[in-house]
Amino acid sequence: MRWNKISDAVVRRLPIYLRVLEEVSREERKNLMSSQELGERAGVAPALVRKDLAWFGEFGKQGVGYQVDYLKNELCRILNLDREVRVGLIGVGALGHALARYNRARALGDETFRTHLVALFDNDPAKWGELVDDLEIWPVDALAGKVAELGLEMVIVTVPAQYAQEVVDRAVSAGIKAVLNFAPVKLIVPAGVHVANADLSLELQRLAYYLKP
Amino acid sequence: MRWNKISDAVVRRLPIYLRVLEEVSREERKNLMSSQELGERAGVAPALVRKDLAWFGEFGKQGVGYQVDYLKNELCRILNLDREVRVGLIGVGALGHALARYNRARALGDETFRTHLVALFDNDPAKWGELVDDLEIWPVDALAGKVAELGLEMVIVTVPAQYAQEVVDRAVSAGIKAVLNFAPVKLIVPAGVHVANADLSLELQRLAYYLKP
Repeated sequence: MRWNKISDAVVRRLPIYLRVLEEVSREERKNLMSSQELGERAGVAPALVRKDLAWFGEFGKQGVGYQVDYLKNELCRILNLDREVRVGLIGVGALGHALARYNRARALGDETFRTHLVALFDNDPAKWGELVDDLEIWPVDALAGKVAELGLEMVIVTVPAQYAQEVVDRAVSAGIKAVLNFAPVKLIVPAGVHVANADLSLELQRLAYYLKP
Repeated sequence: MRWNKISDAVVRRLPIYLRVLEEVSREERKNLMSSQELGERAGVAPALVRKDLAWFGEFGKQGVGYQVDYLKNELCRILNLDREVRVGLIGVGALGHALARYNRARALGDETFRTHLVALFDNDPAKWGELVDDLEIWPVDALAGKVAELGLEMVIVTVPAQYAQEVVDRAVSAGIKAVLNFAPVKLIVPAGVHVANADLSLELQRLAYYLKP
């Protein structure tokens, strides 16, 4: 892969650029946008915008700017969002339930939301067959089968901390390549699998840094 | 402030180091830890651990390592977590409700969880006075009064996108300095106020980068 060396920090900003370009394309129907303007709307310094995008090719012309629709399509392609990405969610407790409904509502209201939640899993037999919006809850034992059947590529993990590693091991064995982890544990995964930790306590703790001592 | 120039990326790693040090201090009762070991457990390269910590002082001795309890206390102080940080949550829909319960459960089970949710707000009169676990839901109009009364410093924002800027403006007017935003919008805040975006769709989109094209 030619992009192996690109840092997570760069990748983290790409969806923000994409969102700005989608807004501009939808609302203002502009053709061209400067790195200055893209940076301001994304909350990123213009020099860093240019540097980030330069990793992936030459998208802009000096003094002219970026072609909005072209750059938008290129970012979609780079992020593998030029197709539907199918996502499962494991652990339908209060947080999982809320995230499932949030994801479904967002996906319905926004055609640019290309990561689609299509299956829910829980280990509690009382929940099996229950619907959250229109999605059925399956046993965790059905995970491998559903990954193959539905083409799942990613999972959101909202199980209690002590079960997180086990369900992720099972997801990885089934072929899952990306995990958004809400459990407050550091997960161990093989090379080629990527974990993002959406840990509320870490977010709150790092925000505390900016408070007055 | 001497720390103004320290990047968000450095600050983002400090709570992860703190978590590792707290685990080590609690479980293994070790006195010393090398940057190698701290890095491995935090998922950060040892050289970067040393560089990050060097921004804040000289905490380790070459060939000896870091004193676990000393470094833990220093990180707490740097992150303003040597005291309780009081947090409000605005928008008690499905996601807000789940996050409130999650935060309360974590805080009860973990004495090192120093960011405490102490007040909930919603604009729906039908919810006013309702309890989530033992926390009462207040009108958003009560925000300014509660910030002063309870010493709130931070808010979690889980309102629908179209209301997010308005509630954040009100929170900032009331003296809030840090916002964890779950609404899928870019918030505008004055200098001195810090926003962290916990945007599920951005997380999923950046994870998609690591999938096979």
